[in-house]
Amino acid sequence: MNNGVIKFLQEPKIMSTYSCVGSEEKKGPLGRLFNYYSEDNKFGKNTWEKSESEMQRIALFGAMQNAGIKDTGLDILLAGDLLNQCVGSSFGLSDYDIPYVGLYGACSTCALGLALGSCLISGGIAERVGTVTSSHFCSSERQFRFPLEYGGQRPPTAQWTVTGAGAFILGNKGRVSIPEAVFGKIKDMGIKDVNNMGAAMAPSCVETIKTYFRETDHSPEDFDMIITGDLGYEGSEILKELLLSEGIDIRKNHTDCGLLIYDIEAQDKHAGGSGCGCSASVISAHILKKLEACELRDVLFIGTGALMNSLTVCQGNSIPAISHLVRLKTEV
Amino acid sequence: MNNGVIKFLQEPKIMSTYSCVGSEEKKGPLGRLFNYYSEDNKFGKNTWEKSESEMQRIALFGAMQNAGIKDTGLDILLAGDLLNQCVGSSFGLSDYDIPYVGLYGACSTCALGLALGSCLISGGIAERVGTVTSSHFCSSERQFRFPLEYGGQRPPTAQWTVTGAGAFILGNKGRVSIPEAVFGKIKDMGIKDVNNMGAAMAPSCVETIKTYFRETDHSPEDFDMIITGDLGYEGSEILKELLLSEGIDIRKNHTDCGLLIYDIEAQDKHAGGSGCGCSASVISAHILKKLEACELRDVLFIGTGALMNSLTVCQGNSIPAISHLVRLKTEV
Repeated sequence: MNNGVIKFLQEPKIMSTYSCVGSEEKKGPLGRLFNYYSEDNKFGKNTWEKSESEMQRIALFGAMQNAGIKDTGLDILLAGDLLNQCVGSSFGLSDYDIPYVGLYGACSTCALGLALGSCLISGGIAERVGTVTSSHFCSSERQFRFPLEYGGQRPPTAQWTVTGAGAFILGNKGRVSIPEAVFGKIKDMGIKDVNNMGAAMAPSCVETIKTYFRETDHSPEDFDMIITGDLGYEGSEILKELLLSEGIDIRKNHTDCGLLIYDIEAQDKHAGGSGCGCSASVISAHILKKLEACELRDVLFIGTGALMNSLTVCQGNSIPAISHLVRLKTEV
Repeated sequence: MNNGVIKFLQEPKIMSTYSCVGSEEKKGPLGRLFNYYSEDNKFGKNTWEKSESEMQRIALFGAMQNAGIKDTGLDILLAGDLLNQCVGSSFGLSDYDIPYVGLYGACSTCALGLALGSCLISGGIAERVGTVTSSHFCSSERQFRFPLEYGGQRPPTAQWTVTGAGAFILGNKGRVSIPEAVFGKIKDMGIKDVNNMGAAMAPSCVETIKTYFRETDHSPEDFDMIITGDLGYEGSEILKELLLSEGIDIRKNHTDCGLLIYDIEAQDKHAGGSGCGCSASVISAHILKKLEACELRDVLFIGTGALMNSLTVCQGNSIPAISHLVRLKTEV
């Protein structure tokens, strides 16, 4: 590790991936790219929590099938979600006979899993690692805000939690590799508005991106895309402005998973998508496919997470945030 | 990795540790061994959640001081707790300028952090890793059961969540090394009684211990101690019985962190202690000291966690559980 940037000597490869989403995501501009969707967002289950777990189960099953491997072919599973005590993951993956490590990184979880899985492969600890991440609009609303039946109103800066899951199998084969990663530091800049997560998370994203460019020879124009997940409209604007004031201009090649997954105006999604299933499904279904097709060749993906819970908000605390980075590169 | 057992080529060492506890733990048989305690369990804060976070901050500070290192001396921080969205850790450690990875393993978190930190060191990803774990009786009761003011009654199989935190610094120096680890698999045997966590967790502990003895040349008598954390009285009895039926007899050298931390009868603690701060503080203050003094030389520590939340219990689900193992060995 070089002042925060990890360069993998054995570059892990993404062997396969699989995504599932709900109906709103299916209707969005990336709709046809997702592997699986549920019209009623229930995935055949009778509670929203079980529906979210079922997405995790399906996503991992699909990714393992796409890689041509079974339970015994995976050394470790890394998984996380937004629910209390991460039950989306533990209930969803309990049928798999695979050593399990539970992660909590809020909406940064997809990047966290990819980064940590890469460490385990590069370090010779594991040969094949599965990572799974999910969020569900209905389970999240109930837990972080109001039950759906209440019909709570949302301000313009609010983001819409994506119903989605993405799974990735890391190993030694595949066109896309992960040559570098950065584990972020927790940043708390005093933002207390739980309906403006973008503003709470942007400063931690600035910190991680600054660390990456400071400790490597790269500059933003070296990358085909710098994609965050998920700052939404508000957070993305803050990120670009803050970075520009530090002399780092990512305006030309920045985008955000939360801005891609919905047709924001037509679907009335306010500041865009959020939830750790957002970046998981967008990276899985959209970005990775473009990398595999060489339409993109070198991408920085920064997952951004807000680390509060509903009680800390009620107690008047500000919102700490974290951003983890992975570089995704196509072998030409 | 050899069918689940990880043998570290570069054996990570425990450089230092630090523990803090509340008043009940201070009154218990290990009371004088803990580094820090708060008479009113508040640690100077005005909410139980902030008190728990403060324990994490103090524990890491103490461990770093004991190792003679500063923020910049740690490459990665691994931390977790029992609170929703792991806010005990993220709020407690947000002041540290250290890359942060959030874990969720319920009461297995201390073992999970030690195992994962060892992977990062042995794999050459990090030179020094901090791991921190906490639980607080008052924040846990409010979240998982009832507010304290309600005065809920507890059945005999219930365990008492420990108010405590433990931090460990892993690196290349120290008398105690971690030569092996096992990441557990999620096991759900259909137990639904949230007041009998021991029964819910014991089967996963059986699975992890079986894996260890099946894949290594060792048998239980090779170890000075096989310590679980935290099955309590009920879960420990089930563990020993289940293992015996599989031909593995750990009755002579088994103990449990939840049985050590309180004078269970005198302190009216029913089936013993629990909470991820239990094993973190007992391993830190008691077991590690005995290893450093060569009173113990080779110990298997298995952290056991129950992965439900209060909503999944209300929805009638059973309780999935997981157990992670680390071997702690004194260099003679």
